Amino acid sequence: MADLAELLRGAVAGERRSLARLLTAIENDAPGIRELLPSLFAAGRGAHLVGITGPPGSGKSTLVSALAAEWRRRGRRVGIVAVDPSSPHTRGAIMGDRIRMMDHSADPDVFVRSMASRGQMGGLAAATWVVAAAIDAAGYDPIVIETVGAGQSEVEIARLAETTVVVEMPEAGDEVQAIKAGLLEVADVLVVNKADRPGADRAARQLRAMLSTAGGRVARKPPPVLLTSATGGEGISALAEAIDGHRSVARLPDQARARADGQLRRALGEAATRRAASRADWTATVEAVATHEIDPITAAERLLA
Amino acid sequence: MADLAELLRGAVAGERRSLARLLTAIENDAPGIRELLPSLFAAGRGAHLVGITGPPGSGKSTLVSALAAEWRRRGRRVGIVAVDPSSPHTRGAIMGDRIRMMDHSADPDVFVRSMASRGQMGGLAAATWVVAAAIDAAGYDPIVIETVGAGQSEVEIARLAETTVVVEMPEAGDEVQAIKAGLLEVADVLVVNKADRPGADRAARQLRAMLSTAGGRVARKPPPVLLTSATGGEGISALAEAIDGHRSVARLPDQARARADGQLRRALGEAATRRAASRADWTATVEAVATHEIDPITAAERLLA
Repeated sequence: MADLAELLRGAVAGERRSLARLLTAIENDAPGIRELLPSLFAAGRGAHLVGITGPPGSGKSTLVSALAAEWRRRGRRVGIVAVDPSSPHTRGAIMGDRIRMMDHSADPDVFVRSMASRGQMGGLAAATWVVAAAIDAAGYDPIVIETVGAGQSEVEIARLAETTVVVEMPEAGDEVQAIKAGLLEVADVLVVNKADRPGADRAARQLRAMLSTAGGRVARKPPPVLLTSATGGEGISALAEAIDGHRSVARLPDQARARADGQLRRALGEAATRRAASRADWTATVEAVATHEIDPITAAERLLA
Repeated sequence: MADLAELLRGAVAGERRSLARLLTAIENDAPGIRELLPSLFAAGRGAHLVGITGPPGSGKSTLVSALAAEWRRRGRRVGIVAVDPSSPHTRGAIMGDRIRMMDHSADPDVFVRSMASRGQMGGLAAATWVVAAAIDAAGYDPIVIETVGAGQSEVEIARLAETTVVVEMPEAGDEVQAIKAGLLEVADVLVVNKADRPGADRAARQLRAMLSTAGGRVARKPPPVLLTSATGGEGISALAEAIDGHRSVARLPDQARARADGQLRRALGEAATRRAASRADWTATVEAVATHEIDPITAAERLLA
């Protein structure tokens, strides 16, 4: 492994290979990575972090690829992190491969990185955040983080991204509707993709209705609901506008503070766990929990006391 | 709010209303709940915790209901926690309502509880664990925890449950396949439900093939792949056998220790975060992260130092 600071310098200077190797070091939580964080962070250029999520089959990858093409036309250098649902054991790279196939592979101003969703550094959120920071330092902006899921991972991506785009497709079903309801809270932009299919207009109307009745929330402008057809290229320009337009909203002090609060809590939990796990009484405490002598919550309080 | 210790005594004595009120207090992280944990835990009777998860539309709720009926025939008192994907704002109770509708509502020996998946006490895992402990104290065994998801929440449930059942249905698609691959790691029992539909046998064969090629894992017997038709009642008895049979495996010391390790890490992260958030310099630190003066990981290390 080359010197990490050297890799960072290379990445900042525009060497794709240095950036790629730096990202591998981050994913592996390589020795020295944590010490590099302050300088990695200081090298950041303030790229717009855009999360794109939605259920399997909603056409996220095609949409991300179409968006990348649109941003390239606008002279932007685009970073894409495709968080794959595959496990570390079955290291598929389904979403990233799909995006690569979409004709960006020859373009040095589009950088695509695939990550398995269960990585090091305490899981998705932490590692993805650092990966995005490295791509930011290399001068890509916006940086799109694409993930699949139906629940938990949307909340994770919303904690990380400045602008969260939730992609839906025409569909029905109680559970699906309930999941959608949960997503409305984290979405800054809603997209009904595959808008050439029957039911798309109805789905968009339904989403707008759900948004207008989702009362009780803090005063917040309801997110726009856009229709796209990624394969046909329809609605892509409007979507890029909506995302770009949300950047300044996302950077209002209250929003930035809420995001920072979530990131800090997450990082704290991970740091505390790492520390406790290296304590001399860790094994005995695990044993006590395993044999039901003590409950985990009370045990955790004692480890911290 | 009645005295919590009083509610616990009532729950242990078999009063459903006391149990229900105790669960509400747990979900709301009511004052005094944390102090109650040691006695709540001590009142536990060692119920078998069974997690059942799978994608929307796989028929989990019907399957859980059929399993409950099977266990009742075997003289067991069944607890069911249905973790709904709905948000706190849109408090649906879709899965729990479905199970209730399945004719267990008149049976005092089936206890069904719905929870929104984004509760208090640091989210799904912590609150669900405590809820299950309370139902255990009330004498239900097994306790089924049903959740929906495609990724993160399966990992959560596997951390909590002693036996994790993953429900699949005949289907295709790259992303779906990749999600399945991730699930194979957490499943103790795999079920292809809706086995009366075309493609069920093929899906079962596919899953078995994926299991046999998922090399690199620690030596572990591959989980059984069962076919069920919850609506037709087929395969339910065999599934109940498989789950019951896994109980002793789940309680081997290594397995219990691994589960305790995960629970303790989770609880530690939450406890540390709660403590840090009450510190005098918390607001200033959040501000520093929000304005990009410091990265969250380094900031967390400093808060802990």
